[in-house]
Amino acid sequence: MKNVSRSSRRHLLQFGAALSGGLLASRKSARADGNTPGQLGIPLGPYGERSPYEKAVRWRRDTKTPETGSSFTPLQDSVGTMTPSSLHYERHHAGIPNIDPAEHRLIIHGMVDRPLLLTVAEIRRLPSVSRTLVLECGGNSGSEWAAKTGPDVQRSYGLVSCSEWTGVPLSLLLNEVGVRSGASWVIAEGADACRMERSIPIAKAMDNILVAYGQNGEALRPAQGYPLRLIIPGWEGNANVKWLHSLRLADQAYMARDETAKYTDLMPDGKARMFTYQMEAKSVITYPSGGQTLPGPGLYELTGLAWSGRGRIERVEITTDGGRTWANAQLQEPRLPIAFTRFRLPWRFDGRESTIASRAVDESGYIQPTREALIAARGTNSAYHFNGIKFWKVQSDGTVTNVET
Amino acid sequence: MKNVSRSSRRHLLQFGAALSGGLLASRKSARADGNTPGQLGIPLGPYGERSPYEKAVRWRRDTKTPETGSSFTPLQDSVGTMTPSSLHYERHHAGIPNIDPAEHRLIIHGMVDRPLLLTVAEIRRLPSVSRTLVLECGGNSGSEWAAKTGPDVQRSYGLVSCSEWTGVPLSLLLNEVGVRSGASWVIAEGADACRMERSIPIAKAMDNILVAYGQNGEALRPAQGYPLRLIIPGWEGNANVKWLHSLRLADQAYMARDETAKYTDLMPDGKARMFTYQMEAKSVITYPSGGQTLPGPGLYELTGLAWSGRGRIERVEITTDGGRTWANAQLQEPRLPIAFTRFRLPWRFDGRESTIASRAVDESGYIQPTREALIAARGTNSAYHFNGIKFWKVQSDGTVTNVET
Repeated sequence: MKNVSRSSRRHLLQFGAALSGGLLASRKSARADGNTPGQLGIPLGPYGERSPYEKAVRWRRDTKTPETGSSFTPLQDSVGTMTPSSLHYERHHAGIPNIDPAEHRLIIHGMVDRPLLLTVAEIRRLPSVSRTLVLECGGNSGSEWAAKTGPDVQRSYGLVSCSEWTGVPLSLLLNEVGVRSGASWVIAEGADACRMERSIPIAKAMDNILVAYGQNGEALRPAQGYPLRLIIPGWEGNANVKWLHSLRLADQAYMARDETAKYTDLMPDGKARMFTYQMEAKSVITYPSGGQTLPGPGLYELTGLAWSGRGRIERVEITTDGGRTWANAQLQEPRLPIAFTRFRLPWRFDGRESTIASRAVDESGYIQPTREALIAARGTNSAYHFNGIKFWKVQSDGTVTNVET
Repeated sequence: MKNVSRSSRRHLLQFGAALSGGLLASRKSARADGNTPGQLGIPLGPYGERSPYEKAVRWRRDTKTPETGSSFTPLQDSVGTMTPSSLHYERHHAGIPNIDPAEHRLIIHGMVDRPLLLTVAEIRRLPSVSRTLVLECGGNSGSEWAAKTGPDVQRSYGLVSCSEWTGVPLSLLLNEVGVRSGASWVIAEGADACRMERSIPIAKAMDNILVAYGQNGEALRPAQGYPLRLIIPGWEGNANVKWLHSLRLADQAYMARDETAKYTDLMPDGKARMFTYQMEAKSVITYPSGGQTLPGPGLYELTGLAWSGRGRIERVEITTDGGRTWANAQLQEPRLPIAFTRFRLPWRFDGRESTIASRAVDESGYIQPTREALIAARGTNSAYHFNGIKFWKVQSDGTVTNVET
């Protein structure tokens, strides 16, 4: 593995056109640099758009019922650690409701001393917090279990995104209504057409859950639960109920469709694990990744994203020889708990076939397992909670493919 | 000043409708909660938009030359610490050029051993870093010098925004071309129609400047310099040249229009300070702020943003009695250097007129000064670098006005 140390950068490029002073002064250079003095540009505007040259979009399967399903974030185009709200992954069960925030209400009821009906404006007046957190669908990269995965990082790993969320601690609201003795679950219900419900243990509800109204500096996007949603740090996306409308305190779980028929882990012995909310440490190389092509031998930056539902990423290792040797990647600071950590490693592609992968270690000491180790422990019946090491093959001609396809 | 401690939250709301169990079960409640079971919502989509109920936009003066001027971020609608790219403030001198990244080039030339012409794709292959940084126009809140400021926080303070920027260290590129002995300035030029130029001392250029191509997880927005711009941590926005096209090493500053006729500080003695790039510690309350109305007495969260070009925010103090007494606000962690720090303080408005303000202290020990102290030191000739304490008046009827208007 040929790494390029940061202390020997000089003349590392081996690309870029060398220029003579004379060329710059000549008329020819005005064309060579691609920039000719132009006309006045576009005026100042009220609400900006991205460049028409930028084409990254979410991907979804072609289907007759596009109100239910998933759309995948284009991780191959990601830079840094945040996900643009317009490209945050989606997972809906009955489409995105059109909710007027002035009409929306949050009911908190059930085993409480003082049931409450709150407006969005009332919630926005309360003491708030902001946290940058990853959100990952429990089914992200689930097709890797059967080695029938998508050809690129978007279609195989794109049900994960990272935003700064702002909202009110759920514990504040629960303290306000007064949770009665014996109440052990919070049943959260959305205002979408299917009234999606999930059950959350009271201990987590009193810990660090947010009733969020803000995302990346503005209101939640409609596809992310506008005007209110749960944000549950480190837990599978499905439990982070969108378009939040009701919180009911109860002494047992609701056994909703999405915690019995779905979002359970079917084990080799035929029994299903339920309420497996926790997302474990995971990582994936986003460049180079399946479907991309390196233009030729030379210096590249291997880069990708790592995250853990249990806290900070402690270390990310990269192999470029199919797992025989591993090198530590550079981690972008600050490493926030339960957020994307961008990792990077300069790498010189010498034109020989190379199998690359990343392996994350979180602050709890948990090491991202191989696919084989996962299958040995849990079989292949499950569609959820796959976090095995992900390999890409860089062919000698620079094309990159999904090893598991 | 009546603060509300976080340890006595129970029944702090004093709003929200109390409900009986019977009401919830009745048909009436289906209307009372504002949410009726609905039809299927909007399908999964490729690129998301915000809710049609959200109306926040940048503001600009009505003018016949909208290609030159400023548009202001709606800070009164901000939550958390990030600015949505669509709402990032603008300051253009000749409009936003339409640049095809495949045609764009960066020239690095002048007093260098090996001039280079680089494509955007070549730059994106290089070792990169990401940093969350505030960007503030040197003229932000400049109208406060003359107490002729805008009526709200957007129009008076909105030339400041915060993004996660990703790019290549400028030092890496300069090491690559080989800076010749005697070169003491980097002259940066944009590809806009006016070819805006600024001169940057070589020491800063070798320190922590980025040649950025990414903003908030995607490509730079056109209004923010697509496809390349300088990001200079802690320095006035104008020096962060957008649509970056040329970097020329020289042994003297260029004395460009924007560092002689503009972006200088005219002192009381008639002399002008030049090259005053550094932005100092500053803060402003965003809620409640001018133009807003509190619906009545009760609990509120006072909140706002603090930042410093010199590093982290160490402390923010809030007064609700016109500056007689000050209390420490809660600061949102993590407090990143040269980034927005959100501050918050629960406050009970009792219906009496109240004059509120915030005061930031940064990690260098610098304390945000009063307007009077600033004027005593620098007079009122300047339009730049105003960072005085900003007062809002909350009237007894809940309306909020700009004290300096």
